[in-house]
Amino acid sequence: MADRATLEELVRLQGERVRALKQQKAGAEQIEEEVAKLLKLKAQLGPDEGKQKFVLKTPKGTRDYSPRQMAVREKVFDVIISCFKRHGAEVIDTPVFELKDFDIAGQFDPMIPDAECLKIMCEILSSLQIGDFLVKVNDRRILDGTFAVCGVPDSKFRTICSSVDKLDKVSWEEVKSEMVGEKGLAPEVADRVGDYVQQHGGVSLVEQLLQDPKLSQNKQALEGLGDLKLLFEYLTLFGIADKISFDLSLARGLDYYTGVIYEAVLLQPPAQAGEEPLGVGSVAAGGRYDGLVGMFDPKGRKVPCVGLSIGVERIFSTVEQRLEALEEKVRTTETQVLVASAQKKLLEERLKLISELWDAGIKAELLYKKNPKLLNQLQYCEEAGIPLVAIVGEQELKDGVIKLRSVASREEVDVRREDLVEEIKRRTSQPLCIC
Amino acid sequence: MADRATLEELVRLQGERVRALKQQKAGAEQIEEEVAKLLKLKAQLGPDEGKQKFVLKTPKGTRDYSPRQMAVREKVFDVIISCFKRHGAEVIDTPVFELKDFDIAGQFDPMIPDAECLKIMCEILSSLQIGDFLVKVNDRRILDGTFAVCGVPDSKFRTICSSVDKLDKVSWEEVKSEMVGEKGLAPEVADRVGDYVQQHGGVSLVEQLLQDPKLSQNKQALEGLGDLKLLFEYLTLFGIADKISFDLSLARGLDYYTGVIYEAVLLQPPAQAGEEPLGVGSVAAGGRYDGLVGMFDPKGRKVPCVGLSIGVERIFSTVEQRLEALEEKVRTTETQVLVASAQKKLLEERLKLISELWDAGIKAELLYKKNPKLLNQLQYCEEAGIPLVAIVGEQELKDGVIKLRSVASREEVDVRREDLVEEIKRRTSQPLCIC
Repeated sequence: MADRATLEELVRLQGERVRALKQQKAGAEQIEEEVAKLLKLKAQLGPDEGKQKFVLKTPKGTRDYSPRQMAVREKVFDVIISCFKRHGAEVIDTPVFELKDFDIAGQFDPMIPDAECLKIMCEILSSLQIGDFLVKVNDRRILDGTFAVCGVPDSKFRTICSSVDKLDKVSWEEVKSEMVGEKGLAPEVADRVGDYVQQHGGVSLVEQLLQDPKLSQNKQALEGLGDLKLLFEYLTLFGIADKISFDLSLARGLDYYTGVIYEAVLLQPPAQAGEEPLGVGSVAAGGRYDGLVGMFDPKGRKVPCVGLSIGVERIFSTVEQRLEALEEKVRTTETQVLVASAQKKLLEERLKLISELWDAGIKAELLYKKNPKLLNQLQYCEEAGIPLVAIVGEQELKDGVIKLRSVASREEVDVRREDLVEEIKRRTSQPLCIC
Repeated sequence: MADRATLEELVRLQGERVRALKQQKAGAEQIEEEVAKLLKLKAQLGPDEGKQKFVLKTPKGTRDYSPRQMAVREKVFDVIISCFKRHGAEVIDTPVFELKDFDIAGQFDPMIPDAECLKIMCEILSSLQIGDFLVKVNDRRILDGTFAVCGVPDSKFRTICSSVDKLDKVSWEEVKSEMVGEKGLAPEVADRVGDYVQQHGGVSLVEQLLQDPKLSQNKQALEGLGDLKLLFEYLTLFGIADKISFDLSLARGLDYYTGVIYEAVLLQPPAQAGEEPLGVGSVAAGGRYDGLVGMFDPKGRKVPCVGLSIGVERIFSTVEQRLEALEEKVRTTETQVLVASAQKKLLEERLKLISELWDAGIKAELLYKKNPKLLNQLQYCEEAGIPLVAIVGEQELKDGVIKLRSVASREEVDVRREDLVEEIKRRTSQPLCIC
């Protein structure tokens, strides 16, 4: 196997190649092929140091954004990167594409890293607060086993797979007509496939299929179902089983997946009671690709890999649309508090106080005027979206307190100076929210 | 004045131009000219919305770095960006150069924004923990006034200024010989200049020069000294006056500064007691450039600006050299705790615990094995630099506690499960350190 530096260089070059193809608007198939090569190279980077998790960081600064767009992007990136870091990722700086990757490479006990990947997806989508979501899960071996027991000829597996994958967008009738009319599948075979792939549910569906007279006779399907059962156990321990839907129609386009596959979709509220929630497209996806590294290794050793990608561009536009619909003002600064004064001749006291706040890590501003009017100071907070005002006044100085005002509610309370930092931290410690 | 979008586009294009020149290794003078144009454009962006603070974010992803280098870079950027944000900056994504800028544009009471710029420089350099530093401060008007009262002809101001600026690297004798020999200054004029520019000190030097029989007769010098006196008052309130040295030889190369100028240098410990600490070069610099916007505004309105730049490339190499000298291992992940088990059959308990920790925002890992050996788990922590291990054991589960082990000291204490998150946060909440 090539040394690490060479591999890193190869990953970089391949990343550039993919990016160039995307810029040239090359065909999807060609891009897919080159992405597959990139993933192979990335997978090879994996086993060198045992456990490997890495993040491909999207290049910042290759386009220009307005401060508003930058604020949205920064917050989305913050959510994703801090989640990846919470799960032990290291960051690799490689100018690849507009997505964020997290991969775990190495030989491990089944389904533990896979469950972590699903946990990461759920953590990120919950933190982003972009509405309800669902993660569809399937296993390549279950799909293959299903095709086999239904009588799909081996040579048609791939093409039937891509028909099945369309079931989230079009009706079964249309999918069936494509299978039969365009792809030459016998109608009764198509119907048998249809009976399986239209099912979705939780762990009980996994258990039901483990008892299925036909599927349980297929070695591949059985392995896949067994792993999914274990996966659901871990997902229950991780507290996310209710976000996961075992969906037999999920196929994922790329050929290199070998085991569990998954795709997260945002849900919109149903138009009418009783209707199924409508998916607005995939915002994250991934799966297991155990076979890739073996293709490159002279000794043919395989290195298991499982990973996920976050579709940040789709998330950005979702967040931006959402903010526009809500007519939300996007803050372009993060200032927590404005240090203000109610009377004249208090510049020195404002400077002393703001210095204390900066030194304690509080994001604070003041107006650069010797004697600003209180009204102007409050107006500035409204415009800049600063939530708190710390007001220095003569009486308060004598009493050893600072008046802390909430800009939204206009409520004011006296806070002891030594408690001010904690109180500001407490009031501004809401979880990161995009809006 | 052009509209904001046009200006932003002009800033972007000019930034690219500067970058291209730097890549082509163009002459310093040409680069300086183009940087000046860039600053003018940036200054114009300022007054549109009153108070404006912005950060030019360096493009990430334009080069490739190793995980180790990336970890160092990320930490340095984190320190700088979080300091800028603490001071109310908004981020502009513009691929410019390898430095970070913070600017305050607008008409304000004297020296308040200037003092904040110096506070920002001190906060960043302290947080980076790259050794002792000093910020030299001077004022362009004091320099000009000094030259005038010493009898330097107007036409020679700029060239004499650039000689004076060399005093931090070469001796006065050499500077004088350049002034007299190369630049045709009368020796007695040079000597008079030398008497002034070799002085440095604190606010007492400002007060002394305010009484200087010659300087106090010069309107420009008097204005500059008056402002510096006010500046020192604010710096004292900010608690950083001891880091600031009023240095009459500081000239800064660029022509566009109009008032206070400053430059931060890292100090090395003196080779022998009594020797002056030796500067290892400028790592941050800036000043006031009030005249720039007027040149572009059809009505000739001037918009005051003050700003600073952090020399991140120099800081990176300083940090990297330092780490190499210390033979420090650079962590490439930020994991705070490994969730481990002492006995077999505790995978489920490990998964439950790690999920609790992730949900509480703790950076946690576990080995992806059903029954890993405790020794292997501890070894993994040593290799990956993970400071804490949370050990699940049968007895501990019964007692409602988790054993928390410090990897460095090998000390173990039982922590009540409901207190574990707080205890991990407490133990890993050291201020951000590069090493």
